[in-house]
Amino acid sequence: MEYSISNRMKAVKGSAIREIFKYAADPEVISLAGGNPAPELFPAAELSAIAADLLTHQPTLSLQYGITEGYTPLRDALKKRLAEREGIGRESDDLLIMSGGQQGIDLTTKVLLNEGDVILVEEPSFIGALNAFRSYGVKLVGIPLEEGGVDPRKVEKAIAENENVKAMYVIPTFQNPMGTTMTLEKRKGLYEVAKRHGLILIEDNPYGELTFDGSKLPTLKSMDTEGLVVYCGSFSKILAPGLRVGFLCADKALTARIAVAKQTSDVHTPMLTQLLCYEFLRRYDIDALIEKMRATYAHRCDVMLRAIEQYFPKGVTYTRPGGGLFIWCDLGHGLDAAALAPQAAANKVVFVPGSAFMVDGERPTSTLRLNYSTMSDERIVEGIKRLGDLFTRVLAEQE
Amino acid sequence: MEYSISNRMKAVKGSAIREIFKYAADPEVISLAGGNPAPELFPAAELSAIAADLLTHQPTLSLQYGITEGYTPLRDALKKRLAEREGIGRESDDLLIMSGGQQGIDLTTKVLLNEGDVILVEEPSFIGALNAFRSYGVKLVGIPLEEGGVDPRKVEKAIAENENVKAMYVIPTFQNPMGTTMTLEKRKGLYEVAKRHGLILIEDNPYGELTFDGSKLPTLKSMDTEGLVVYCGSFSKILAPGLRVGFLCADKALTARIAVAKQTSDVHTPMLTQLLCYEFLRRYDIDALIEKMRATYAHRCDVMLRAIEQYFPKGVTYTRPGGGLFIWCDLGHGLDAAALAPQAAANKVVFVPGSAFMVDGERPTSTLRLNYSTMSDERIVEGIKRLGDLFTRVLAEQE
Repeated sequence: MEYSISNRMKAVKGSAIREIFKYAADPEVISLAGGNPAPELFPAAELSAIAADLLTHQPTLSLQYGITEGYTPLRDALKKRLAEREGIGRESDDLLIMSGGQQGIDLTTKVLLNEGDVILVEEPSFIGALNAFRSYGVKLVGIPLEEGGVDPRKVEKAIAENENVKAMYVIPTFQNPMGTTMTLEKRKGLYEVAKRHGLILIEDNPYGELTFDGSKLPTLKSMDTEGLVVYCGSFSKILAPGLRVGFLCADKALTARIAVAKQTSDVHTPMLTQLLCYEFLRRYDIDALIEKMRATYAHRCDVMLRAIEQYFPKGVTYTRPGGGLFIWCDLGHGLDAAALAPQAAANKVVFVPGSAFMVDGERPTSTLRLNYSTMSDERIVEGIKRLGDLFTRVLAEQE
Repeated sequence: MEYSISNRMKAVKGSAIREIFKYAADPEVISLAGGNPAPELFPAAELSAIAADLLTHQPTLSLQYGITEGYTPLRDALKKRLAEREGIGRESDDLLIMSGGQQGIDLTTKVLLNEGDVILVEEPSFIGALNAFRSYGVKLVGIPLEEGGVDPRKVEKAIAENENVKAMYVIPTFQNPMGTTMTLEKRKGLYEVAKRHGLILIEDNPYGELTFDGSKLPTLKSMDTEGLVVYCGSFSKILAPGLRVGFLCADKALTARIAVAKQTSDVHTPMLTQLLCYEFLRRYDIDALIEKMRATYAHRCDVMLRAIEQYFPKGVTYTRPGGGLFIWCDLGHGLDAAALAPQAAANKVVFVPGSAFMVDGERPTSTLRLNYSTMSDERIVEGIKRLGDLFTRVLAEQE
């Protein structure tokens, strides 16, 4: 049987990262390819107590159908938290519970973009979002991501040069994959461009709380006087990703449409996982937990950066993230990181080549993404050493 | 701010059923409008013990990212169950875990149907599925649902009369909203039509296990020699709907595409809810639980049918379901059930008018759906009595 696949899905491939994970199953392989949070920080004992309590004392609430918009007390708690900490939430905004931050990106695209419309993206950008846009037949146009964020003038130029530019997707803080953060000036500049052109900004902020030194820049949503910003957040990196609980804050006219789209998709996010998030917020100190995560990731990032300094050949450049889970490296010298990945795997270390995060995933690039969040210091150092040996050898062969 | 909504989502309204639920919040109102399973049958104590155990002894598995296809032991257990009980699963088939049966319908549409393509549906049919199809700009063509199922000749006629008919959506067993079951002969006939025309059949079977007398007809998927049937199932009606765990069985060439679509949507179904389903299957006797549900719903259905006989005016016709959650009534006499719904609500009883389940939801119809699954005998009888009084009065006024 030959299936006739829809035009929108025809070109969408599975994530290249998943192929790399096949190697990572070998315990001798050091994977710098992941993006998982550190499992030893999951508050499992607390969640276990909450789950038993909920299923014993509120079984119907935990197990019966819920409403599509999400569990009201959780929505209220998140609205309060976002207002207090991020200055997010105008009178005209509402907040929906999503099945992970990714669902917010997916449904916003479904509601706002037609096939053939253009979305601007930072390049490189998060592969899950790129594939969500592709899966609706939306055309991607990349704006090069520099240290300090995309240049708002380049965004304005792309709007002028392309037809039907409807939206831009950005991760302003501790970007995936680059680890960089958009400056305040560029945030303001980008919002002004959006305002001038009626451009919707999808602001994805899963890593914002994982700031190493506690410093924080205003979100785009906090500047949103016009209802242009759709803000996507998640419990994945501050509690546990397997729960698949995220949220979306946008103008009510949009959230009403997104709720209809969610109703036809998974009806609602599971009640039990929503209740676990709500009760954790209510009974425990999530900020103390986030503080532990910050310290852990800051330390591991530092270990990786020192190892890179020691073992990577001169001339390799890399970002110095202020938070989040990723470092971005550029090998330069016209090298193709994707072509080096199998050699690295043979040396028992894996990474994600930069091409996976590009609009055109086939074009060779000398860049790659490294993750430090789940490993011991020793594994991080050993992984970087193995990569450094490979890169040194390859560069020597080139000369 | 005026948002420009995508063409695919422009025409999709929220479910009319949700508006009716506003009345149902009043405890004096008897709601015959729902579709919830009976919460007193949720195995809350067992799920509480499993949840505490999982989060204590397998915290990383329960809380870390999982794979998009679903938790492998759960997939294997479901494959085995479907093979043994439903004769489902050829060598070339695979099974994916979905976030509710609805997600299977949603993603199958996304992968197979272009905007403007036609899907055939039983009329009336499940509103969540109809809205999922609409949300991808797919055109609905209704085939009248008769006792014993749609007429395969009418399906073939609709294929001939419409361009780009790609698929048909059917609930062959204890249909929502009609409560009827497709005969074996019509199942065979429909599959033959599908085979002749390469028509994909989306077989939705959430109620199949809720058979009152234990009898069961072969699923369409069990006849599927050609890979034409996408089978959607769910734990919602046999365990608990708030968990949002469903599954989909189809040819591997399709499941591979559907997995890519799921990856860009909610990445994966939550690990904890998948593990709860798996461990419940492994540690407890789900068939004993289903037996309790069958007995409960058979009793409540019988109570409602007897009350209808007693209190509804002569000439009102209704279905006698062999399982599931719904009875379908036709008031006849050119009455518009939607126009009567507000009067019923004023009399403290609510139902869903048949128009909600039609391709053209604006066209008046004398039909309505009644649900009996969550109420005491007294409430069922009182609800039907209130409706009967209203219908008797309205019909008397007509004469």
